[in-house]
Amino acid sequence: MNDGIEQRSAPRVEVVTIGTEILLGDIVDSNSAFVARALADAGIDVFAKHSVGDNVERIEAMLRGVLDRADGAVTTGGLGPTVDDLTREAVARVLGVDLVLHEDSLRKIERLFAAHGLSMSENNARQAYLPRGAEPLENPHGTAPGFLAFRADGKLIAATPGVPREMRAMVTQRLIPALSARYDLQSAIFTRTLHLVGINESEADRRIDDLFRSLENPKIAMLAHDGYVNVKIMAKARDRGSAEEMIAPIEQDVRARIGSWVFGVDDVSLPSAILSDLIDRNSSIVTAESITGGGIADAFVHVPGASQAFRGGVVAYDNVLKISLLDVPVDELREHGAVSEAVAHSMANGARERMGSDFALATTGIAGPTGGSPEKPVGLVWFALALPDGKIVTRRSVFPGDRDFVRRRAVVTALELLWRNLDVGRQLAISAAGNQSLREPLG
Amino acid sequence: MNDGIEQRSAPRVEVVTIGTEILLGDIVDSNSAFVARALADAGIDVFAKHSVGDNVERIEAMLRGVLDRADGAVTTGGLGPTVDDLTREAVARVLGVDLVLHEDSLRKIERLFAAHGLSMSENNARQAYLPRGAEPLENPHGTAPGFLAFRADGKLIAATPGVPREMRAMVTQRLIPALSARYDLQSAIFTRTLHLVGINESEADRRIDDLFRSLENPKIAMLAHDGYVNVKIMAKARDRGSAEEMIAPIEQDVRARIGSWVFGVDDVSLPSAILSDLIDRNSSIVTAESITGGGIADAFVHVPGASQAFRGGVVAYDNVLKISLLDVPVDELREHGAVSEAVAHSMANGARERMGSDFALATTGIAGPTGGSPEKPVGLVWFALALPDGKIVTRRSVFPGDRDFVRRRAVVTALELLWRNLDVGRQLAISAAGNQSLREPLG
Repeated sequence: MNDGIEQRSAPRVEVVTIGTEILLGDIVDSNSAFVARALADAGIDVFAKHSVGDNVERIEAMLRGVLDRADGAVTTGGLGPTVDDLTREAVARVLGVDLVLHEDSLRKIERLFAAHGLSMSENNARQAYLPRGAEPLENPHGTAPGFLAFRADGKLIAATPGVPREMRAMVTQRLIPALSARYDLQSAIFTRTLHLVGINESEADRRIDDLFRSLENPKIAMLAHDGYVNVKIMAKARDRGSAEEMIAPIEQDVRARIGSWVFGVDDVSLPSAILSDLIDRNSSIVTAESITGGGIADAFVHVPGASQAFRGGVVAYDNVLKISLLDVPVDELREHGAVSEAVAHSMANGARERMGSDFALATTGIAGPTGGSPEKPVGLVWFALALPDGKIVTRRSVFPGDRDFVRRRAVVTALELLWRNLDVGRQLAISAAGNQSLREPLG
Repeated sequence: MNDGIEQRSAPRVEVVTIGTEILLGDIVDSNSAFVARALADAGIDVFAKHSVGDNVERIEAMLRGVLDRADGAVTTGGLGPTVDDLTREAVARVLGVDLVLHEDSLRKIERLFAAHGLSMSENNARQAYLPRGAEPLENPHGTAPGFLAFRADGKLIAATPGVPREMRAMVTQRLIPALSARYDLQSAIFTRTLHLVGINESEADRRIDDLFRSLENPKIAMLAHDGYVNVKIMAKARDRGSAEEMIAPIEQDVRARIGSWVFGVDDVSLPSAILSDLIDRNSSIVTAESITGGGIADAFVHVPGASQAFRGGVVAYDNVLKISLLDVPVDELREHGAVSEAVAHSMANGARERMGSDFALATTGIAGPTGGSPEKPVGLVWFALALPDGKIVTRRSVFPGDRDFVRRRAVVTALELLWRNLDVGRQLAISAAGNQSLREPLG
């Protein structure tokens, strides 16, 4: 709503999450990260985040403190129908106003209850009361409206719900447009994220270390998680077009150093990158999982449209199933044990043939905490990938960590083995076209 | 270290996480939840949590603000070797002291580098500098020590690392013992958590609502997540024994109202409860997954020792595999479609027979975003469970939400169907022994 008021420069805000459950760690707070990122991307600097319990005095004191330091507070939580939902009241105290009924919001809540054949309790009407003078922010996914209010000195408080789905929609669809109308958000932060796999953080760091130090805008950040490395290039610019012009040469420089580990940009995940590639070439993939126990299949099925390339798989946790469903020879299991290159090889081969697929990806390993030996320690995993020509590529890894860590890393490493060899497949094709020397598949 | 100083009553503290990546949402902060819970459990009240970027002035201002309101600050992050690690410097400013080299810590860092055959850089020595007068807290899993320091007015600042594994070990093994020695932590909070499945939050709330309102110590909290409901009973007591005496009658009361949905207490998960039960009766389980795509198998394999009851499964995402690996009749697929009671039934039956298991659990559904129709909307899932006697129980659900939501709920609902029928199995056995009437399996 741009009502002719002169636009002011972008506010500097702090984020406050409200709720005893978040404060005491009963739930991990993912809201404040979302809000901070969304505001930063819109060009609003976030200087601090806070969390406070369901106590009206403490919420009030927290908000007063924030408005002392910053231009505004953005809150999540405490807007529901229960007696523990105290954000409206605390904000009214900070603004020095009373709470008044917002008729439109009340009618929306009544309609939602009626649509579900329920009668509305008195408690639910509480959600329609807002601090006097506040502008309601509609809740696209729930009953409780949020609001945007200003103190007499011009400092702002924006209140959004604690339910992540409701909060996210409200922040992006209602709050940021409302702030854009009132403030001159001259420049926003535009980001391009390169996703890497198969390189560790310190090696990536070594290769682009000087860029971290020398660049200001765009600047670079790196984050490692679960076997992946993300390199973010962030440009502060007036619009996407100029941001892209600023980002392009930096991206080129980064890719020249670590491009061979980049599997995608921005919202791409490794399973989605693999599936797109397979769908493009009309190829299919199946899995034969022991240690990863369905984790690779699950990562594929997570991607919408996975069925165009992912056919399914076998979780052959028990050796009997390795034999009956994947044709692993009994003698091989006896001679080499289930966790061996030979058995991984046979699992991939059997899966590809039994399920009639182009590629097949197999894992077998020791997740722990028990079952390790000096020759085969906890964390040992054998991977095998059957290629469309029937050749099998294998790889051995030992992951240092607990059961959960070993299994998560095994999933990522299996995917990387597949991706790396898809890539080799592409390079084979390109090389063949250019009559260059061929590279072997990488184990 | 109890050095004869008179013990003071438990401090009220605030938690401060330091790091631009956490502030801007590049990583989700799980540290502050852990610290808050660990302190609360040790009897130290946590009144607020904050997050601030890597900026020495802002960290200093934040800590000064905390010490104005509370008895102390506990920080995580900013103790590493880089120029962005500014916690030591900010704390020294707040305390009005300089940084001095802590020789023991320096030698430990040198030893760790030598053990890995590396020479130590100048930067790494920075980690051994602590605010003058601070007591170092050893880092069991890394190089950077933490510390515990007191301002002239007796207010405390405790600094711990940002790497979760290092922070967790330091908080539980070093910080809390150090605080226990200096403060009279008269009472700690002891918790018993009842885990429920198959009941929604509002129904659980309705049944124990009066306990929420009436109880003070022990008190009750409820949390719903991903189809589960947790009911926590929290007692503030001097020791575990008296806490347990306080908790027992409340637990009995709660169980009288909602006990039939309780599958376990404290650290038990639904897959682990199911596996324990199966192992006890020497029974086995296999899976036949379409929509859940390996998610159920993965949930089982997540549990250490799963192989004693979980044999494996098939991810039959493509219909061809439903036929070839699970013996689903082609006519059935043609007549009813893959997402149907008949096909779920055949998948469970085929999995049980082909894999030679006591129980078999099958899922087929439409995860979306596309593929729905008026008769079979996105979110529709059919479940089937084959029982040891060959009987099949089926269930139909429609989950309102996105692909990820539908698939996560489908995993939990499948597990609940199995658990509920294990329970019926037990009741059948008990009833038969007591010559009471038998109940049918629950679909």
